[in-house]
Amino acid sequence: MNTDTKNIKKLIIDQSLQLDCGKTIKDFSLAYETYGTLNKSKNNAILAFHALTGDQFVTNINPITKREGWWTFAVGPGKAIDTNKYFVICANVLGGCMGSFGPKETNPETNKIFGTTFPVITIKDIVKAQKFLLDYLGIKKLLAVTGGSMGGMQVLQFVSLYPDMAHSAIPIACSASHSAQNIALNELGRQAIMADPNWKKENLIPSKGLAVARMAAHITYLSKKGLQEKFGRKLQDKGSLKFSFDADFEIESYLRYQGSAFVDRFDANSYLYITRAMDYFDLEKQFNGNLSQAFKNTKSKFCVISFSSDWLYPTSENKEIVIALNACGANVGFVEINSDKGHDSFLLNVPEFLKVLSEFTNSTYNEINNEK
Amino acid sequence: MNTDTKNIKKLIIDQSLQLDCGKTIKDFSLAYETYGTLNKSKNNAILAFHALTGDQFVTNINPITKREGWWTFAVGPGKAIDTNKYFVICANVLGGCMGSFGPKETNPETNKIFGTTFPVITIKDIVKAQKFLLDYLGIKKLLAVTGGSMGGMQVLQFVSLYPDMAHSAIPIACSASHSAQNIALNELGRQAIMADPNWKKENLIPSKGLAVARMAAHITYLSKKGLQEKFGRKLQDKGSLKFSFDADFEIESYLRYQGSAFVDRFDANSYLYITRAMDYFDLEKQFNGNLSQAFKNTKSKFCVISFSSDWLYPTSENKEIVIALNACGANVGFVEINSDKGHDSFLLNVPEFLKVLSEFTNSTYNEINNEK
Repeated sequence: MNTDTKNIKKLIIDQSLQLDCGKTIKDFSLAYETYGTLNKSKNNAILAFHALTGDQFVTNINPITKREGWWTFAVGPGKAIDTNKYFVICANVLGGCMGSFGPKETNPETNKIFGTTFPVITIKDIVKAQKFLLDYLGIKKLLAVTGGSMGGMQVLQFVSLYPDMAHSAIPIACSASHSAQNIALNELGRQAIMADPNWKKENLIPSKGLAVARMAAHITYLSKKGLQEKFGRKLQDKGSLKFSFDADFEIESYLRYQGSAFVDRFDANSYLYITRAMDYFDLEKQFNGNLSQAFKNTKSKFCVISFSSDWLYPTSENKEIVIALNACGANVGFVEINSDKGHDSFLLNVPEFLKVLSEFTNSTYNEINNEK
Repeated sequence: MNTDTKNIKKLIIDQSLQLDCGKTIKDFSLAYETYGTLNKSKNNAILAFHALTGDQFVTNINPITKREGWWTFAVGPGKAIDTNKYFVICANVLGGCMGSFGPKETNPETNKIFGTTFPVITIKDIVKAQKFLLDYLGIKKLLAVTGGSMGGMQVLQFVSLYPDMAHSAIPIACSASHSAQNIALNELGRQAIMADPNWKKENLIPSKGLAVARMAAHITYLSKKGLQEKFGRKLQDKGSLKFSFDADFEIESYLRYQGSAFVDRFDANSYLYITRAMDYFDLEKQFNGNLSQAFKNTKSKFCVISFSSDWLYPTSENKEIVIALNACGANVGFVEINSDKGHDSFLLNVPEFLKVLSEFTNSTYNEINNEK
C-alpha cells in the first residue's frame, strides 16, 4: 500500500476486496483525512463515517468545495469530539466522488470514466474498504465508530463485521434496514438523474436532473415544522405574488440554490451508486431476519441517538436497533433529542445532541484509561 | 351560455371573469359532469371539488382515461354520497386538462396551444368559475360543498366567497394556507417538469419530467407506515438483488408505473398551473391574517375531516380551520379518521370516513327537509 499525496490524501489499497455483487476489486483508492494526533497507545482513534453526500473533510474548510466540513459543529479542537484529545479518521466512501474509487474515476482498462460501468456497491463493501485504512494506520481497536444517516448504517455494519474493533459505537439518525419510503425517495432522485438527457453522455453533466434529486432529498432532511418556522410563506420579493413560475416564495429560491450548488460538488453517478447502497442495506436480512444476531459478538458499548422531528429515520426505526442490541445483551444507551431541525439535526448546532456525543465519547475514553 | 357536447360536457361561459392576476377571461369553457337527478326543490345538489390531478369524472368509468372515477368509493348509487338521492356536480378546474379552459387549450388569438402563455390562476379564480356553472344549472343553494386536498381548499374558498350558498361544507384533508413544505414539494415537481428539455417545445411532451413530478407527489400521498406494510423491502423478482439500477424493489416499479401512467392522462403545464394555484392559496392572508374573518358571514354547517397518517395536510392544519370556524361562532364538527393510508385516504375505501361523510350529508339533508 502507498498513499498518493496529490491535493487529496489517498491510500491505494493493493489487496483484493470481493464486493457483494461478486466482482473483486484491487489497487483501488480510498481518499481520507485525519484530525488530531494518534496517541502512543493508539487508543484515541475515532472513525467517523459520512452520509450520502458527505466526504472525508469532516471539519475545517473543505479544500475542494471551500465550504465548512460536514461535521464542523461536532468535530474540532474543544468541540464535542475534541480533536485536541482524539484522532478522528474519515474516508470518502467507495462509490464517492472525493477521490475514492468511484464512478467518477478512470477505468485503467479503458482509460475512460467508469460511469455506470462501475460495480454496484453495498454498505458492507464500503465498510470493508475502510478496514484496510485502519490496518494501514496501525489501529487495532478504535475508541469509537460514529456517523449519522448512512454514516450510522456503516456504524452498524462495522460492529457487526468487526465485533472486537471498537470500544464504542454511536449510530445516529439511522436504520438497520432501509424503509420502503426511503427506497422510494432514493428512487425518485435516481429517476430524476436518469431522466436527464445528459446522463451517460460523455463529457456532459446531468445537472438539471441532479439538482432535482438534491431538492427532493433536501426537503426530506428538514422537518415540516422547521420549514414552516424558517420559511413559512415568506415571499422572495417582499411585495406581492408575481403570478409566474419564477421563485415567488423564499423556500423556492432556497431549494433552487440547494439544487444548483450541489451540482458543483457532486457526481451524478456517485449519487446513483450511493443511494443504491443505502437501499440495499438490510442488516436484519444479513442475519436471516434476526437483527440481534448482527450484534451477538459485539464488545462495543452503544449510544443510539435519534431526533424527534426526523421523519426520514424516525425514532421508531432507531429504537429497533436498541431493541435488537438489548436482545443480545449488549451495553446500550438510547437518547431521542428534541429538535425541530429534522434529519439534518445531526449536522447542525443542536446543543443537547452535541453534549450527549461529547459525554459518551469522554466516558468511554475515561473507562478504557481507568480515569474514573 | 351554451354547452358543447362533444365527448366531454362543457359549459361555455360568455361572461367575464377577472382573474386574481389582473387579466380578464371571457368565453371560456368549463367541462363538468353531473350524477343523479336534481329534485324539484333543487335542494339536493352537492358540488364536489376535485384535487390536483382529478377531473370532473367523479365516479363510474372515466370515459377518457377508462379508469374508475377518483371518488368512486364515496359517490354513486347507495354510496356515502348517494346519487339515488343527491345530485352531484363536479367541474374540471380552470387550468385543468379535461376540457376546461387550461394551458392545453388553443388560444383563439394565435391558434396555438396556450402552454405557458396561459394566465396564472388561483383557487379563488377556480371557485369563481364554478359559480357560473351553478347559475347555469339554476342552483341557488347547494346541499353541500365538499372535496379533499385541493378540493378542500376550494370548499373553504367557496364558503368564504358565497356564505349563503351552501347548507353544509365538508373540507377534507386540506389547509387554509399552503405550508412551506407543501410549496417545496410542489416546486420540486415543477422543477422536474421544467428540467425536461421537451418542456415548452411544440408538439413534444416533457414526459420524463412529468413522471418524476408524479413520483414525488405520489410518495407524499402515502404514509410511511402504509408504504412499509404494502411494499416493505419486497423484491420485484422474488430472488436476490440485481446489483443494477433496474427496479429491484416492488416500490420502485410501482413508482415507475405511477409516473408513466400519469403522463398518459395529464398535461405537464396543467400540473404547473394547478400546483401554483395551490401554493398561492392563503385564505388567512385574504383576510389580513385573521382566518376566522373568512367565515364570519357563513351560514354553512361544517364537518372538517382529517386523517391520522396524512403528513401532507396533517390534522394540525385541519384543526386550524376548526379553530377559526369556532372563533366566529360557526356550526362546526371535526373528525380525525384513523387510517394508515396517508393523504390518499380520502380517495380510498376507508369505512369510518365514508360513514362520517354519509351521515353528515344525510343529517343536513334531513334537517333542511325537516325530516328529523
